[in-house]
Amino acid sequence: MDISDGFDAGNIEVLDLNDPSAIQLRIRKDEGEDHYQWFHFRVTGARGVDLKLAIVNAGEASYTKGWENYRACVSYDRRTWRRVSSTRYEDGTLTIAYTPEQDAVWFAYFAPYSIERHHDLIARCLESSLVRHELLGRTLDGQDLDLLRVTEAGGEPTEGKKQCWIFARQHPGESMAEHLVDGLLARLLDSSDPTSRALLNKADFWIVPNMNPDGSRRGHLRNNAAGANLNREWLEPTMARSPEVYLARQKMQATGLDFALDVHGDEALPYNFIAGPEGVESVTEETRALQAEFEAELAAANPDFQTEHGYPKAEMGKANMTMATNWLADHFGALAMTLEMPFKDNANLPDAEFGWSPARCERLGEGILTALLGVVDRL
Amino acid sequence: MDISDGFDAGNIEVLDLNDPSAIQLRIRKDEGEDHYQWFHFRVTGARGVDLKLAIVNAGEASYTKGWENYRACVSYDRRTWRRVSSTRYEDGTLTIAYTPEQDAVWFAYFAPYSIERHHDLIARCLESSLVRHELLGRTLDGQDLDLLRVTEAGGEPTEGKKQCWIFARQHPGESMAEHLVDGLLARLLDSSDPTSRALLNKADFWIVPNMNPDGSRRGHLRNNAAGANLNREWLEPTMARSPEVYLARQKMQATGLDFALDVHGDEALPYNFIAGPEGVESVTEETRALQAEFEAELAAANPDFQTEHGYPKAEMGKANMTMATNWLADHFGALAMTLEMPFKDNANLPDAEFGWSPARCERLGEGILTALLGVVDRL
Amino acid sequence: MDISDGFDAGNIEVLDLNDPSAIQLRIRKDEGEDHYQWFHFRVTGARGVDLKLAIVNAGEASYTKGWENYRACVSYDRRTWRRVSSTRYEDGTLTIAYTPEQDAVWFAYFAPYSIERHHDLIARCLESSLVRHELLGRTLDGQDLDLLRVTEAGGEPTEGKKQCWIFARQHPGESMAEHLVDGLLARLLDSSDPTSRALLNKADFWIVPNMNPDGSRRGHLRNNAAGANLNREWLEPTMARSPEVYLARQKMQATGLDFALDVHGDEALPYNFIAGPEGVESVTEETRALQAEFEAELAAANPDFQTEHGYPKAEMGKANMTMATNWLADHFGALAMTLEMPFKDNANLPDAEFGWSPARCERLGEGILTALLGVVDRL
Amino acid sequence: MDISDGFDAGNIEVLDLNDPSAIQLRIRKDEGEDHYQWFHFRVTGARGVDLKLAIVNAGEASYTKGWENYRACVSYDRRTWRRVSSTRYEDGTLTIAYTPEQDAVWFAYFAPYSIERHHDLIARCLESSLVRHELLGRTLDGQDLDLLRVTEAGGEPTEGKKQCWIFARQHPGESMAEHLVDGLLARLLDSSDPTSRALLNKADFWIVPNMNPDGSRRGHLRNNAAGANLNREWLEPTMARSPEVYLARQKMQATGLDFALDVHGDEALPYNFIAGPEGVESVTEETRALQAEFEAELAAANPDFQTEHGYPKAEMGKANMTMATNWLADHFGALAMTLEMPFKDNANLPDAEFGWSPARCERLGEGILTALLGVVDRL
Repeated sequence: MDISDGFDAGNIEVLDLNDPSAIQLRIRKDEGEDHYQWFHFRVTGARGVDLKLAIVNAGEASYTKGWENYRACVSYDRRTWRRVSSTRYEDGTLTIAYTPEQDAVWFAYFAPYSIERHHDLIARCLESSLVRHELLGRTLDGQDLDLLRVTEAGGEPTEGKKQCWIFARQHPGESMAEHLVDGLLARLLDSSDPTSRALLNKADFWIVPNMNPDGSRRGHLRNNAAGANLNREWLEPTMARSPEVYLARQKMQATGLDFALDVHGDEALPYNFIAGPEGVESVTEETRALQAEFEAELAAANPDFQTEHGYPKAEMGKANMTMATNWLADHFGALAMTLEMPFKDNANLPDAEFGWSPARCERLGEGILTALLGVVDRL
Repeated sequence: MDISDGFDAGNIEVLDLNDPSAIQLRIRKDEGEDHYQWFHFRVTGARGVDLKLAIVNAGEASYTKGWENYRACVSYDRRTWRRVSSTRYEDGTLTIAYTPEQDAVWFAYFAPYSIERHHDLIARCLESSLVRHELLGRTLDGQDLDLLRVTEAGGEPTEGKKQCWIFARQHPGESMAEHLVDGLLARLLDSSDPTSRALLNKADFWIVPNMNPDGSRRGHLRNNAAGANLNREWLEPTMARSPEVYLARQKMQATGLDFALDVHGDEALPYNFIAGPEGVESVTEETRALQAEFEAELAAANPDFQTEHGYPKAEMGKANMTMATNWLADHFGALAMTLEMPFKDNANLPDAEFGWSPARCERLGEGILTALLGVVDRL
Repeated sequence: MDISDGFDAGNIEVLDLNDPSAIQLRIRKDEGEDHYQWFHFRVTGARGVDLKLAIVNAGEASYTKGWENYRACVSYDRRTWRRVSSTRYEDGTLTIAYTPEQDAVWFAYFAPYSIERHHDLIARCLESSLVRHELLGRTLDGQDLDLLRVTEAGGEPTEGKKQCWIFARQHPGESMAEHLVDGLLARLLDSSDPTSRALLNKADFWIVPNMNPDGSRRGHLRNNAAGANLNREWLEPTMARSPEVYLARQKMQATGLDFALDVHGDEALPYNFIAGPEGVESVTEETRALQAEFEAELAAANPDFQTEHGYPKAEMGKANMTMATNWLADHFGALAMTLEMPFKDNANLPDAEFGWSPARCERLGEGILTALLGVVDRL
Repeated sequence: MDISDGFDAGNIEVLDLNDPSAIQLRIRKDEGEDHYQWFHFRVTGARGVDLKLAIVNAGEASYTKGWENYRACVSYDRRTWRRVSSTRYEDGTLTIAYTPEQDAVWFAYFAPYSIERHHDLIARCLESSLVRHELLGRTLDGQDLDLLRVTEAGGEPTEGKKQCWIFARQHPGESMAEHLVDGLLARLLDSSDPTSRALLNKADFWIVPNMNPDGSRRGHLRNNAAGANLNREWLEPTMARSPEVYLARQKMQATGLDFALDVHGDEALPYNFIAGPEGVESVTEETRALQAEFEAELAAANPDFQTEHGYPKAEMGKANMTMATNWLADHFGALAMTLEMPFKDNANLPDAEFGWSPARCERLGEGILTALLGVVDRL
């Protein structure tokens, strides 16, 4: 048997393969060395073998609370990702016990969304007459940073409409974020959907499905190719260290911004929730109320979303202005929010077989449009 | 060239075919002779020919207001139905001017939903572990009357849950009703959809996708094989004249009923709307308020639905108790409603190419589940 | 539980349903009363019940040898038809023992090919720029008799090319014949297939996927709506009794005919084979040799075809000239053949799960084009 | 506008982008610096712009005859690749004149087959009960070298059956080779296909869909990550320079080999043809005759294959024994052949829109099984 990570978003180091019941693995650190938690590897030659795959450096990973009650993702067909119920975290080691039914089996921290699939997504969207593509620029690894414009006017923005920005995967290991955007885009471009049609009558969309293609392809959890955590770069991004943020921010300043949704995954909390710019002093009460209403609408549209559990609120004036949501809320006076999805599951509506899954991300992405339609006139 | 209707739901009589620019057609009457408006036929051998298809008895059809601003449906592939913009109603004749691009082209009053497709729908639903099929009985033409039970308990009803009945196509020519149920079922059985999962936690579903298979196959507008308008049979249905209603009503009495949605199409009004049991004295204020809330939720979930336009309300005490909604509201004290969709289009969000379409019916069917989840606890 | 046949091609009469382990059924006779063997019905309400379905008049069916080693076809999804291994023929009764896994299950003599699917096939073919449709005329039940023309010149015939006629389902219960034509058409219209492209460079195709739509819809084995066995009508067809043959023959006389393949199923023999115009005196040695070569090429292209087993050859001069192949061979001096497929299986390459199946019919249809390309220059 | 190659198999360098009508590009050399011809890039921001893309170092590419009458491949959806008719080769520069219809458009030397797609292929094949996967080993870039075993015995080899090896893409830029294997595998695993079933009754298959994943991902024409041309490494492969060949050859020696097909593309010749071990003295007349028969069978099965045009034959005794076909023929005394497909088109059956295409590669892959069945007993 063997274990490999020599593919898009692969991340594992094999320490010891001699005994299938005591395999020792290690997750590689992101560039920058301050983060790691994403893993993705293929096991071959172990059909019918009782495997114990121990990730021995799990205990120093970025979010060790993320391993509690976590179940690893496993797939044979690379589309359907089930959860491994016998995933255990103990003494700093994450152990996945599994008996493959086929000769090749894939494991991942969450269902991956490859760069090839990203390009397929861009290409598919461009088949719609509502969409135009714009290149924001180039990443440090030489990849394209893709922006999709979706508007009633064939992808051209319209004076007077609300300018809505949705961007995902600043943290590349949070692949659920691109799954969500995939579902959101499919609905937004569905000409039979009245919510999308009504929304496009009032709003233009600027969508970045993947803010961090370099980290994605490299199998990082949080950083880009320069070791930068993009969601700590919004105050002073540079082309040398964080071109992804520099380019997106520059474009936002050109277009104006009335609504921003920054899509993420959270390692620890088993819930979908929104983190707003709570500690940002310039945010008006009106905008705070609008955020609450958006959240209520989203919970109605998609019961996988909830408003009870979430991050502790920052104290007023203590917001970290290097983060996208805080900076955008302050700079544009707009409704800006961070959406967090679980790596684990939604504890309010758990799914034993799939946990939080790509399909559920897509449903949540669809629901965002319903919630946005509910508040768009007041943006 | 030739015109035929020798297939499922076919309905046309050819009076004169000599001149392609002056073809004369007539719609056959339903059994019972009191109704006709549904048409469905195939034209062959007219590729590139400028046709004028005149339905000369349109002026005595059931709903002549239905012809005003109506555009006929046309299809080559039998899945995609576009609208013929040059459809005209004048002097009692409906004229469809069209130049076919292929040798065989299909026309219909609305996108058909055949009996074969109905059986495929039943079969597909039964692949879900949430569904059981139950035979309500046999129609006068010897067809099966199919009931689907959808519940969290594998299709078995659960004590204490709300019993929700959804039935469609009492009027067989209102094929949009089965398209809606198709979409509703697809969402209800989607295990990634949290609305469906949350709803099934509280409610059991009893769904009759087609209440009138005989009329459907015969190409009727409103009647069954005995010439009965099923939605005038709820007070005293009989096995001889209206077995479809007799059998469904009997089953409802066995299961109890907390919610009923009777799905229809309206020939004249270019809107989606709900008609409730307005004139039924026994309906409580609470239930009337719940209906209003359901309507508001549906409008939020699907902007193709609206609450401004609709039927004139019956005076209190003057309700026609032979209709399903009135009889069910009175008999069960439940929230019972008739959903009406347009044959034409939604004038608030018109679609020049497709008008009101199967895909939009499906979206509306999906929205019904969101609205129902909003009121289910108060049923 | 219940059993119904109230749908396209349905055929069963229920004699006794009281005891699931002793259900008694009877096949209805074709119009004309001289034939029956096709059955098709749906069983509902018997999930998990050990059924014994006895067709008590099997012993007087048209081909009782057809029941020997026969296994009934069963489906849940109406696309995948498996074989029931516990099908028994004894004392004139065919008994199907089966325990349904779902509430609704379909049985048939062979995987059906409905009229709706036929119309979908026609519509799909017309999406190709190589195809034109022509209406041969109307059947006695008022259905369209469809002819497809497939030629390099956009469906128009070309002077000097070989005129190849392929027609299927003179006997409507032989639904495998339309499955074969479906596969043949898919390959013929595949622009990436060099065999099809090379063939269309030399030949024009005239294809009738279903010669007997009335018998098909009625659930007949062999006859049309007037009780005529179409493959005994080629000498003197009439519009009153056999319009299907009258119209096809008339068209053949107009187009000329260099090659004819009449596609059938055989109830008894577990092989694919060709029956030629053996007893027709006018057939030249050259044509007989060409037939042998076609058969050899087909066996090479598709090993499900063989040349060892088949019908006994008619004595020279004793051919039944009312049959298509004999009449066409004689009248046109062309290579005319009848292709027979099994209802059971190919005993040389048996498939325990599916027996002879729609997919295998399609593969054989594809192979016919390879064989035809091998002989086309000598037609 | 911009041009990028930062993705799987990307290869282009941008020299000058200032003037859309005079863009200057250069193809990067393979590792080893002795080869280049493969290109693959994405153009963004040029919708409706008349582009002239000049590859200025085309004149020193590996096969300059390959540019004569060559038409570049272009795609919007990344699945459908059309040919650019206005591709010109003059004075050592290949110029592609094109006006994109969308904001993002992909160009390539031939339709790519990405590593992600390769992994999907492996995963899809493993869904068949006939298949097992075996890891041959690891490449220099750390990728898995995948071997599929396809046998009647669930992927296990059987004593006495012919051992047939099919391997593709030693030269990574010849992506048509993996498209062919994709089609071949789909047919081989199709349980309705009698050719595949008959063949698996006599033969076991060892299939390597991609012999050179490193070169593939890097966008090479011919070499691996160490700069080795794998098809010149069969005499003395080493783990340091050519592990792909070393590992495959080692496995072949373990399994034995009765048939070998090495699948390639040829830059210059507009034909499909086979190159055998003509100059290898140890090849028997019997084997040479068998090769001729295989070729004849393949031409019959798939008219895109021909036997007239091909490489000049090596003189007897002058064969280059470092090439797979020669070495295998000599070492195993087996029927070993190289199949060459065009980058351009099949001049005998040209397709103006698509040229030689992935779909045609798949058809040819299917045909190989027919040809192999014709000779398998004499291997």
